[in-house]
Amino acid sequence: METVSLQRLEPKKKVGLIVVITGNGKGKTSSALGMAVRATGYDMRVCIVQFMKGDMYSGEMDGIKRLAPNVEMHLTGKGFCGIMGNPYPYEEHRANAQDAIKLAKEKMLCGKFDIVILDEINNALKLKLVDLPQVLDLIDSKPGPMHLILTGRDAHPDVITRANTVSEVHELKHAYRSGIEPQKGIDY
Amino acid sequence: METVSLQRLEPKKKVGLIVVITGNGKGKTSSALGMAVRATGYDMRVCIVQFMKGDMYSGEMDGIKRLAPNVEMHLTGKGFCGIMGNPYPYEEHRANAQDAIKLAKEKMLCGKFDIVILDEINNALKLKLVDLPQVLDLIDSKPGPMHLILTGRDAHPDVITRANTVSEVHELKHAYRSGIEPQKGIDY
Repeated sequence: METVSLQRLEPKKKVGLIVVITGNGKGKTSSALGMAVRATGYDMRVCIVQFMKGDMYSGEMDGIKRLAPNVEMHLTGKGFCGIMGNPYPYEEHRANAQDAIKLAKEKMLCGKFDIVILDEINNALKLKLVDLPQVLDLIDSKPGPMHLILTGRDAHPDVITRANTVSEVHELKHAYRSGIEPQKGIDY
Repeated sequence: METVSLQRLEPKKKVGLIVVITGNGKGKTSSALGMAVRATGYDMRVCIVQFMKGDMYSGEMDGIKRLAPNVEMHLTGKGFCGIMGNPYPYEEHRANAQDAIKLAKEKMLCGKFDIVILDEINNALKLKLVDLPQVLDLIDSKPGPMHLILTGRDAHPDVITRANTVSEVHELKHAYRSGIEPQKGIDY
């Protein structure tokens, strides 16, 4: 491969974006993790607060450690509320998500991070583990230059209204529908 | 945050998946990069061949180095063919994409990688920089346990037919439509 000289973009005006990644397809959390990788290329600092992923191991937990100290990840929650087999009562899910809201606000306002990712927060809102005013308060208290990324299916219309960029990931096909079990590195 | 004990999934049958991430919205390459992060959590090996991103710096070029030696990335191409301002003739774009096809096949068959990502290959096919039989040949020669991820808008129907998992990323909103320039760490 020939080496090409690289052009570098530099926005005249730095704007802290609100990005929402929603929809029922695969690739929402992956997309946020990918932005974290990209950001480390500029030596930016990223904080990820996962709202609902606490009880199932996923490769990102160790993968993200390779991006330290630029990226830190906090797991909260006890897995997907209401999903068959999940043993925890609603109150416990809610208490965990409430802790996550506090943690998210603290991380957003501490001045240390260029990007904060609130992973699965849309889902947590839809399941009433957090309340709409709490999520809107987080969005409205975003420091100007900081980017905020909110992921999870069923993003609330008021969240979408406040966002600058919104992608909706649709499932056209998924391996599990043809009886293939989740595969590590791809599905978890 | 309370520490919870983690459950670990282990599929009874390991299946090498074909995953397609297409659509016009933000988050396709990001999604593939995120899967690469996740895979490194299992110490898996990932090779990324970017088909059309050669002449514009993007944070992932340095970000991905933090995942070495598990992840390697090869930039090919001379940026987006046919986009206003791109100075290279079609023949040069095509020659580069043809090199990328050869490189991709070599990487897929060398036995070193658990995941190969063909970034923007759908786009390269749509723009006739590569031909449908070449892309189908790559897919059909995928080693059984290896996962293959194809990204880019306008995925060909024959590619979708062969895939196990297909996500289509729709743009609901994008910051640039409201006059905000691309921001680093998020858009590039």
